[in-house]
Amino acid sequence: MGCSTSNPSFSHLFISTLILLTTLYTTPQISAVQYPINVWPKPTTFHWPHPQAITLSPEFTISSPPHRYLTPAVHRYLRQILTEHHRPLVTPLLNLTGGPPLTTLTIIISDAAAPLNHGVDESYSLTIPSTGAAAVLNAETPWGAMRGLETFSQLVYAKPARVACGLYISDRPLFPHRGIMLDTARNYYGVEDLLRLIRAIGMNKLNVFHWHITDSHSFPLVVPSEPELAAKGAYGEEMKYTAADVKRVVEYGMEHGVRVVPEIDMPAHTGSWAEAYPEIVTCANKFWWPADAGWADRLAAEPGTGQLNPLNPKTYEVVKNVVRDVVSMFPDQFYHAGADEITPNCWKIDPSIQAFLSNNGTLSQILEMFINSTLPYIMSLNRTVIYWEDVLLNADVNVAASLLPPEHVILQSWNNGPSNTKRIVDSGYRAIVSSSDFYYLDCGHGDFTGNNSLYNMPPGSDQGNGGSWCGPFKTWQTIYNYDITYGLTEAEAKLVIGGEVALWSEQADSTVMDSRIWPRASAMAEALWSGNRDEKGKKRFAEATDRLNEWRYRMVTRGIGAEPIQPLWCIKNPGMCNTVHMA
Amino acid sequence: MGCSTSNPSFSHLFISTLILLTTLYTTPQISAVQYPINVWPKPTTFHWPHPQAITLSPEFTISSPPHRYLTPAVHRYLRQILTEHHRPLVTPLLNLTGGPPLTTLTIIISDAAAPLNHGVDESYSLTIPSTGAAAVLNAETPWGAMRGLETFSQLVYAKPARVACGLYISDRPLFPHRGIMLDTARNYYGVEDLLRLIRAIGMNKLNVFHWHITDSHSFPLVVPSEPELAAKGAYGEEMKYTAADVKRVVEYGMEHGVRVVPEIDMPAHTGSWAEAYPEIVTCANKFWWPADAGWADRLAAEPGTGQLNPLNPKTYEVVKNVVRDVVSMFPDQFYHAGADEITPNCWKIDPSIQAFLSNNGTLSQILEMFINSTLPYIMSLNRTVIYWEDVLLNADVNVAASLLPPEHVILQSWNNGPSNTKRIVDSGYRAIVSSSDFYYLDCGHGDFTGNNSLYNMPPGSDQGNGGSWCGPFKTWQTIYNYDITYGLTEAEAKLVIGGEVALWSEQADSTVMDSRIWPRASAMAEALWSGNRDEKGKKRFAEATDRLNEWRYRMVTRGIGAEPIQPLWCIKNPGMCNTVHMA
Repeated sequence: MGCSTSNPSFSHLFISTLILLTTLYTTPQISAVQYPINVWPKPTTFHWPHPQAITLSPEFTISSPPHRYLTPAVHRYLRQILTEHHRPLVTPLLNLTGGPPLTTLTIIISDAAAPLNHGVDESYSLTIPSTGAAAVLNAETPWGAMRGLETFSQLVYAKPARVACGLYISDRPLFPHRGIMLDTARNYYGVEDLLRLIRAIGMNKLNVFHWHITDSHSFPLVVPSEPELAAKGAYGEEMKYTAADVKRVVEYGMEHGVRVVPEIDMPAHTGSWAEAYPEIVTCANKFWWPADAGWADRLAAEPGTGQLNPLNPKTYEVVKNVVRDVVSMFPDQFYHAGADEITPNCWKIDPSIQAFLSNNGTLSQILEMFINSTLPYIMSLNRTVIYWEDVLLNADVNVAASLLPPEHVILQSWNNGPSNTKRIVDSGYRAIVSSSDFYYLDCGHGDFTGNNSLYNMPPGSDQGNGGSWCGPFKTWQTIYNYDITYGLTEAEAKLVIGGEVALWSEQADSTVMDSRIWPRASAMAEALWSGNRDEKGKKRFAEATDRLNEWRYRMVTRGIGAEPIQPLWCIKNPGMCNTVHMA
Repeated sequence: MGCSTSNPSFSHLFISTLILLTTLYTTPQISAVQYPINVWPKPTTFHWPHPQAITLSPEFTISSPPHRYLTPAVHRYLRQILTEHHRPLVTPLLNLTGGPPLTTLTIIISDAAAPLNHGVDESYSLTIPSTGAAAVLNAETPWGAMRGLETFSQLVYAKPARVACGLYISDRPLFPHRGIMLDTARNYYGVEDLLRLIRAIGMNKLNVFHWHITDSHSFPLVVPSEPELAAKGAYGEEMKYTAADVKRVVEYGMEHGVRVVPEIDMPAHTGSWAEAYPEIVTCANKFWWPADAGWADRLAAEPGTGQLNPLNPKTYEVVKNVVRDVVSMFPDQFYHAGADEITPNCWKIDPSIQAFLSNNGTLSQILEMFINSTLPYIMSLNRTVIYWEDVLLNADVNVAASLLPPEHVILQSWNNGPSNTKRIVDSGYRAIVSSSDFYYLDCGHGDFTGNNSLYNMPPGSDQGNGGSWCGPFKTWQTIYNYDITYGLTEAEAKLVIGGEVALWSEQADSTVMDSRIWPRASAMAEALWSGNRDEKGKKRFAEATDRLNEWRYRMVTRGIGAEPIQPLWCIKNPGMCNTVHMA
């Protein structure tokens, strides 16, 4: 039948049928999936008054202004659109227009020269007519066009291919910084894994890959001016990242509208540097928690000791070489300099530091020396520096705010939920939220240390939360429902630039990367793109469940090994797997 | 250097060096990895007084008596032995003999006709001389020979290949029933996944794949005499198991010494049967927990309602067809008939059952009817029947022990840890232990139901154990340390025939099968094969950590996507990732 807004009887019949069928499967407590086919993250505005679909012509093309990174993206999406033939789990109840097929998607960009920087305009609007006329994707920048292409691709389905039509989408993110942090030092990930991660990041309209490259356990990055760091500090010859590997990752990111932000954690978390330069690392290769020592006297937060010695001038020779080369390999404006978890005793056992302390020096002064000797240098290379919250907020070792100019320093929170976010923004800094209570993806798998008698309790003992320091496991709903500006005034919230879920790799590597990250990171992706509330301001996690189910399956067919969130039965029976009572 | 027991100075020097190197890496709290190359599960007896290795000849062959299932296993192991070239993470400190290579492994079987039944002798002994003379694998049965072949394969490493020599292993399992249960009804797994699972099961010297095929959510098994059950109850055309698929799985199991035990859960967990036969299922397709109903008035233990109606004669027509065909498709002596989690209200809302109950009938009598009408039939087909503990132990609905002859019925525990195991054996039944507190692999990922306001608590709320009914996540150490005969007398313990870890698939399917099961199931595999204690009777979980690390990596290189248990740094620095204090 034709698709026309001047055919009221058909429209009414269709909508009545839709409502009827929807009612059959609803329960009073939840709202039904709103559309027959959905986009994840849910767009800001999605007008589809008379849901229909139009055949996609086998000669479908995308016309776009040429652009170094958008052009490969267009090719990639065109190939996917023509070949994916996705079959949703719940067949969309959509009639075809019966008219001419859709043959063209036209991309119009206002500012083709806009670089992929923090805060770049990612908005777009998408119109797909029912008449066979060209679909039009308007975007301010090429990066917004990539977001719009992803949306378009999710509206295509079936074999032969068809696409939702008679719709208008206007879309833009709530937060400019939406990322995933992956730790490639506790365990190694191959380059192909990182590319696959970036592909999934782009699919979810996230825009940052925060690459925690090095730590005490390994130093896989081949730094051209400091080759010994990886030569001695990597796990093995095949477990390194060369400059060519990094280039590949960065370019691939650009083609997906994903910024790659490097983190070289310092001065703690640097035990691996001691393989090449034992003289610049304190307490390297020591047992992390000596027998008969209290927690306060540990040498590291977890096994794997070593912190850079800020009192040794040699430290800064090496650090500057590393920073200079990393800045050169990673073109993004943001550079993450770590500065988390300085363990007091690891410094205190060093003789030169002992001498300093016995002269009325403090550990905080030592950290200030380190910051003063490194931060200005990074800034001079035209970088904005991200530090973990500890550099300012740690109770034992911290620096004065006067050393951290807010125009050039951003702080990333991870403890105490919204409290620390508030402390950060109240100190005048922009915040990236990674509260471990919500956004740490590794939590809930127990403690990884060996010889741990916690796990040798008699049957019947209370297993608590399983031993993971940040347990329990953060479910997708927990992540979805987190408001990263919780408790902040409007003015304070302005300084929250976004959030990142983090996968620390003590118990993760390639075999679980996809399932440990997805689809839970998709939950944050929607919360940070278009929010977690419906038009009435109510949390929409119930309605999101069925949409996330479909999206998880689509990611799997696209080669991302996301874990399932429910039995398949649940999505085939919408609403039937809800719980009514509070657990 | 030559390998000879008459060269004391060399032996002493070597052992001294080994002790010295070992000491360098030990901490006082744990015993070092005992051998340069290890086998998982650890063999019962492993004599290797002068650890050495011998080159494997490129013409290495295995001579074995012909046997329908052992012969393909021999071919498989030979190919692996010649091509694997496994490189352990910690290079074994082993000198080569310098003498002739090993060219032959000879297999000698005492009882080649022994079938793969419960209790079959799986013992073997393995001698690998250093002289180049043939290695000899003695086994009572072909199934013991398969265990020995797996052990031999784990002693081979490097490129060019070499194998540990100058050793004698004598090995046999503590428990005869050592299995993995996989639920393929909440979510579907392809046949290739099941074959890979069986391969991993055999690698770990487990011997049972308990296949929980059907449930309320789907009925994927194509039963030849009842084709409508799968035609209407499977998730889809490509999500079924045909008779040919089953044959393939069973045969593959035989080739790996793995028995495939089918479970067709009844009378609860049968909602999917209502798609074909609505008349024999009560409370099908209802919302599982109606609004304003207390937990006691729920219709099912989780979303997905439906229980067979024991008062409808039609029920037994269908059940008998299913049982007959399943018995015919699965040759194993054991048949699992389910009988867990009967939800009272699901029966009570049925008019015929209401009539029965109002005539002074009880739900337990109804269950007794069901058992009386089905159990003798299954027994008549020469099967031993496994039921879940509920059939005897459930507080609300259970049958008298007189209906369950102990010679023909085995009970599988899952609640209340050792208490229910004790109740089972004290009632005179053999027990398979699957205590959810230890052996349920799905625990710890939260509750899968949607619209669950548990996950919409304000930041700072106590997240408890994350919402999973059986949380927290069971770490490998928790599983390893579980004594399935805890608290039992010697006589009681005799009735415990073994254990099974269980992967319920509400939140699991192909993308996570390997990582959700391995290497945690390996922990149970060793505990049930050779135990979890050292020669002094002390729990050996500390020493097991490094061995399990190596084994996890070997499984990964063999194509099983096991999750990592520690940073790679930990295995390269043995003992350094232990914890000293109780957490």
